[in-house]
This record gives sequence, C-alpha cells and structure tokens, in this order.
Amino acid sequence: MGRFCVRITSVSNLKFKIYKKDGQARTAVMTLNHGKVSTPVFMPVGTQGTVKTMSPEELTSIGSEIILGNTYHLYLRPGDKLIKKMGGLHRFAHWNRPILTDSGGFQVFSLGLANKSKKSLVKISEGGVTFQSHLDGSRHLFTPQKVLDIQNNLGSDIAMVLDECAPGKSDKKYARAAMERTHLWAKQAIDYAKKKKFKMAIFGIVQGVTYDDLRQESAEYINSLNFDGNAIGGLAVGESKENTYRALDVVLPLLDKDKPRYLMGVGEPEDILEAVERGVDMFDCVAPTRIARNGQVITFGGKLNMMNAKFKTDKEPIEKGCDCYACQNYSRAYVRHLLIAGEVLGIRLTTIHNLRFMMRFMEEIRSAINSREFIRYKKNFLRRYV
Amino acid sequence: MGRFCVRITSVSNLKFKIYKKDGQARTAVMTLNHGKVSTPVFMPVGTQGTVKTMSPEELTSIGSEIILGNTYHLYLRPGDKLIKKMGGLHRFAHWNRPILTDSGGFQVFSLGLANKSKKSLVKISEGGVTFQSHLDGSRHLFTPQKVLDIQNNLGSDIAMVLDECAPGKSDKKYARAAMERTHLWAKQAIDYAKKKKFKMAIFGIVQGVTYDDLRQESAEYINSLNFDGNAIGGLAVGESKENTYRALDVVLPLLDKDKPRYLMGVGEPEDILEAVERGVDMFDCVAPTRIARNGQVITFGGKLNMMNAKFKTDKEPIEKGCDCYACQNYSRAYVRHLLIAGEVLGIRLTTIHNLRFMMRFMEEIRSAINSREFIRYKKNFLRRYV
Repeated sequence: MGRFCVRITSVSNLKFKIYKKDGQARTAVMTLNHGKVSTPVFMPVGTQGTVKTMSPEELTSIGSEIILGNTYHLYLRPGDKLIKKMGGLHRFAHWNRPILTDSGGFQVFSLGLANKSKKSLVKISEGGVTFQSHLDGSRHLFTPQKVLDIQNNLGSDIAMVLDECAPGKSDKKYARAAMERTHLWAKQAIDYAKKKKFKMAIFGIVQGVTYDDLRQESAEYINSLNFDGNAIGGLAVGESKENTYRALDVVLPLLDKDKPRYLMGVGEPEDILEAVERGVDMFDCVAPTRIARNGQVITFGGKLNMMNAKFKTDKEPIEKGCDCYACQNYSRAYVRHLLIAGEVLGIRLTTIHNLRFMMRFMEEIRSAINSREFIRYKKNFLRRYV
Repeated sequence: MGRFCVRITSVSNLKFKIYKKDGQARTAVMTLNHGKVSTPVFMPVGTQGTVKTMSPEELTSIGSEIILGNTYHLYLRPGDKLIKKMGGLHRFAHWNRPILTDSGGFQVFSLGLANKSKKSLVKISEGGVTFQSHLDGSRHLFTPQKVLDIQNNLGSDIAMVLDECAPGKSDKKYARAAMERTHLWAKQAIDYAKKKKFKMAIFGIVQGVTYDDLRQESAEYINSLNFDGNAIGGLAVGESKENTYRALDVVLPLLDKDKPRYLMGVGEPEDILEAVERGVDMFDCVAPTRIARNGQVITFGGKLNMMNAKFKTDKEPIEKGCDCYACQNYSRAYVRHLLIAGEVLGIRLTTIHNLRFMMRFMEEIRSAINSREFIRYKKNFLRRYV
C-alpha cells in the first residue's frame, strides 16, 4: 500500500477507510451508526453505562470518539430490556457517539476463574455458558444468539461475538477445545446476525491462547467468516509480552487488511505501540481509569502516584504541557490533597488526566503514522516513558 | 424602609447594599474581596477545599456566588500554612469567587459531643479550646487569635470568630458560661483583627442556646462589637423549630439592620423561609450535598429518594422544569441505575441537582422580596413542598 493509497470497505454497518500506512501500522476512519472514529483508537471502558467518574461531555472534551460498554454488567443491571425501553444505551447514558459492547463472555469466564472454589458458578457447553450473577446469585445462560440480542437491545454500534477466553496457562488440549467452541459460536453468531439483519457491526474474536498453531487456525477460521471486523482475544490476561507479541505476529497477517483489527483489553502504552506497529487499530483497557482511582497518573515520562508525599507542596500540574482540565487548573499539591482526603474531585481529576493522556498518545501515534515516522516516534516515546 | 430605599454600609472588607425590603425580609448585594454576592444566599459547603463531587465550574454554572470552607478540616489537612504557600485557598482550589470560612469551633465542639466517652478530647478554657485531631490524635489549641490567623492564611473573604456552640440541651448555667466565653473570645478577636489589619471581613456570632434572656444579652453584646456582619450560632444542632424561630425573633431586631446576618448551619427550605422573613441574609448547610450522596433529591414538591424502585423505568428528569445539568440530560431511571450501581456520576448528578435547587429557591426568594410578595411566595412554596 503506497503512501496515498486509500481503500474503502463498505460492509453493512461499518465503513473502514484507510488513510495512511507506515509499515503495517495504519491510520483510518471507521464510520459507525453514531459517527466516525479515527484509528488507531483507545476506547475508554464504561462498564455500567458510565465511564467511571466522567460525564459524557468530559469524555467528548478529552477527544473520546467511542467508548466500550460491558454486556455482562448491563444485562444483569439495569437489564438490556430496560435499557431498550429507555431508548437504548446511547440515550439512557446521554452519549451520542459510537459504543462498542463486548459479548459478556470475558466477564463470565473471569467470574469462573475468580471463584475457583465454586467452579459450578460457570458451566460451559457447546450451546453456551451458564453462570451465576455476582449480584444476586441468580442463574443465567449466554448463547451466541442471546448475547447478540442483548447487544442489539443496548443499541451497540459494534457487537462482539460470544467467545471462550481460556486462561493463558491452559494446556493445549483445553486451549483447542475452547477455541473450537469459540469457532462454533462464531459461526452460529454470524448466521444468526444474517438472519436477524442487525443494524450493528459485528466483530469475530480470534482465540488460541499462546499456541502458534491454534492462533493461526483461529485467525484463518474467524477471518473466513467475514465479520465487519476482527478482534484478538485472550492476550490481556497475564501472558508475557513475548507471547503476546508473537501471537500478534502469527495472527495479524491472516486478518483482512481492509477491516478493523481490535486487540481486546490491551492498554499499556508499550503494548499499544507494539500492536500498532503490527497493524492493530483498536484498543480498550480499564487500567487508565482504574489506576486513576488509586491516585496513579500516566504521563509521557511514566506513571506517578499522586499521593506520594513529594507532591505535598508541588505547584506544577500533574503533567507539564498537558491540555487536560486537571492540568490546566490544578496543582499536584491540590490533587494530592483531594486524593488523601478521599474527595471525589480527586479521582475525577486523575481520571480526566489519564484518559486525556491516552487520547493524546493515540493522536501522536496517528500523526506519526501519517508522516511515516511511526518507528521513530515509538523509539522516542519509549525512551521517555519509564 | 420604602420600596426604593437603598442603604449602603461600608466597612473595611465588606460592603452591604440593601436593594429591596418586604417586611423584615430584604435583598441586598454583599461585596467581598473576591466578588459580589446577592442575598439572601445559600452557601454550599466545601469542607475540605472542595464542595463534594463538584468542580468549581459546575458550582459557577448552577449560580453559586460564595462557598464555605471548614477551618478545622483545612487546618488539620492539608494545613493552612501549606495552603498559604500554595497561594491561598482560592488559588489552591481553583475557585475565584468569595469564600466564607467558619472558625473551626463548631467542629471541635461536635468532636467533643461525638466522643462523650472520651470527654478529654476537647478541653475548654478561657484561653481557648484544646482538642485532638480526628485524623491522627495529635493535640491542638484553638484561640480566638489563632483561628483568625488560620483563616487569614486560607485567604477567606469572611472569617468567623471562635465561639462555643453549646448543645441545645445545655442547662442555663452552662449556656451562660459558654456564652460568656464566646463573648470574651469575640472581644479578643475584634481587638486582634484591628491590630493585625486583616483584609478579610469578620463576623461575630451570637450564642445563648434557647434561653431568651441569654440570646438577648448575646445579641446586644456581639452587635456592640461592630463586626462586619453578625451570625447566629447554635440553632442548627437539633433544637425544635419553635425554639429556633423564637430565638430568631429575640435576636434579629437587636442586630444592625445595615449589616449582613447569617444563620449558621441552617438549610431546610422551610427554616430558610422563616429566617428570611425575620431578616436573615445568609445560610449554609451540608444537607443538600450530604443527602445527595445518599440518593435523596430536593424538589419543589419535596424530597425524593432516587433509589426507590418506582423510578426504575421513569423517563422523566429528577424534577420537571429544572434547568440543571442532571435534569436537562438524564432520566430518573438512569440516575437510579447509577446510584444503585455505586457509580460516581450518580452522586455528581444528585449533588448538582440539589445545589441547583437551593440556588433556584434563593433566586425565587429574592425575586419575591423584590416584588414585595414574599409572604405569598412562602405560603405557595410550603403548600407544594411536602
């Protein structure tokens, strides 16, 4: 692909227009029902129909073009049918830009992992997965069809198919079984989606733990089903960076180049750089918002704990040169005071900063790709980011 | 005072210009170092240098012209000297409008009451009051002079003198002793303030529990000291409404009419109406923000608990006709969902609504006074507010 080459893919509910390429890295504009998204993109996570501590206007002001919602949580509370009745998740949550929802599978399987003593909480069969609500213990069944219906009720712009995210330490036998279930469910999902003529885009998910041959098989199969986009799952649950990057090396060349590629659950800056270099377009991660609530901030110089005593009388902003609301108006000393005192404004400010950091980081990545300086940018970034 | 009569009082760091009167109720503009305040006014409480969950811009957008800071809390954490070093509380907290700070006395005495088993936590003498920090148990002394120095370090627009807020059930002997200490401290405070030439306005505080003769004696004495304004303390700690209103009847006629009068800690709408009718200009209360964090909202029809199941699919805003950010953009169903799910945005929205309610309520009160319809307004308000 040459410098000015542009390819347009028009699939049912998603357009993906590649703008520039630099090696495998590329910038593009993804058009969804609720608007356009510039990629590579980081999607803030709004688990329960809100990105924790943030208002939608604050999200817009930091440059967020798409957020993620969690099907598992919203299905259980307040319920996808209630949200549908209220006009869909966008209207319910007063967010007018695109929303990607996961399938709920990851949460269900995490639940199983987190409760090893009570393995019965999660039961997997070829038909789907049964689980108990973490809220009230009630039993529920997720099938490939049902999770699409739920996401359709939510009004998602991009729905994810049900997959089994096997633990990183799974033996090969289990990894294969989980992958094959994932494939079976993916086929059922795409067939169901065609029948129902959903107005949302639907992404398939590649699994295979860290076994190269399984990853290859999974990438080829999922890609063959011709989803609107392809995601790579199972690489954000504690694998070594080496295994993660090797899996990306195996998988990415096998996914259609003219469709968006989404590396699920990954959000560490160094991992994003490695993935973008290999051709990934979309990312999400709870870390920037979660660590903000523990007082940790991300800067281009690395992470800082704002509760550290050394910031007690520090008049500087969280990060010099940052254009976020927190950095434009408050000192580290004040942010530290708020965090130590347990004041909500403290975690509002660290969250705004961290998400704005992610947006600035992605803006810089896109700009570097557009000027074919991605590798240089990556090196410079990593030299500063310690 | 006739309809168009205007009186101007110019004292050192406060101007109080009465605009209209309706009976004893009056509207005025109070000019302080950081700007003008229309009275009668409700002051949101920002205990630890932040009005809980709110940004300064949100406070401005709801029409808040002055907020209150708590000297006790800020002295202990992060410390008044640190705040002075950081350029004062306004700069530290990114709030450019007036701030009133209390003396810290009320918190110290509340601490004593809350720890009846450990009476030694608080020791009162003629020289001041010693207490232990609720944070680390360290011992501290507040004197009439020291609390002014602290408030001066904070950069307050209005400082309050140290007083002893005796419990509502104090016997007359204790009530008199506390009142006499309050008077002694008030005299020391005004003498110290004159000597130091503070640039902040300073208010005296009338005490006397619910004994009419003590209230009268206190009002006369405090008024004679010629503070920039006069406050009435000790009427927000569980007294009956009857006793509170009778105390106001005794005290208010004895306070200079051309100076602001501040009823401390009172914020229930019905109490505000009774006090405004008797000539009070300023109010503060933690209730609107505190109950918001429990999911309770204030409307012109009374209080509602937004977590109630009946709001589960309610598409209406918290309060129809309200112009606040919460009511303009979100349904009761969504606010309920956020509160039930423990999401910060939920308490941000209820807090914004409750404080905007208080601002709208005070706007209506001022408007009613200006058109000499206060009594009618009060009746109409109380008929709706159940």
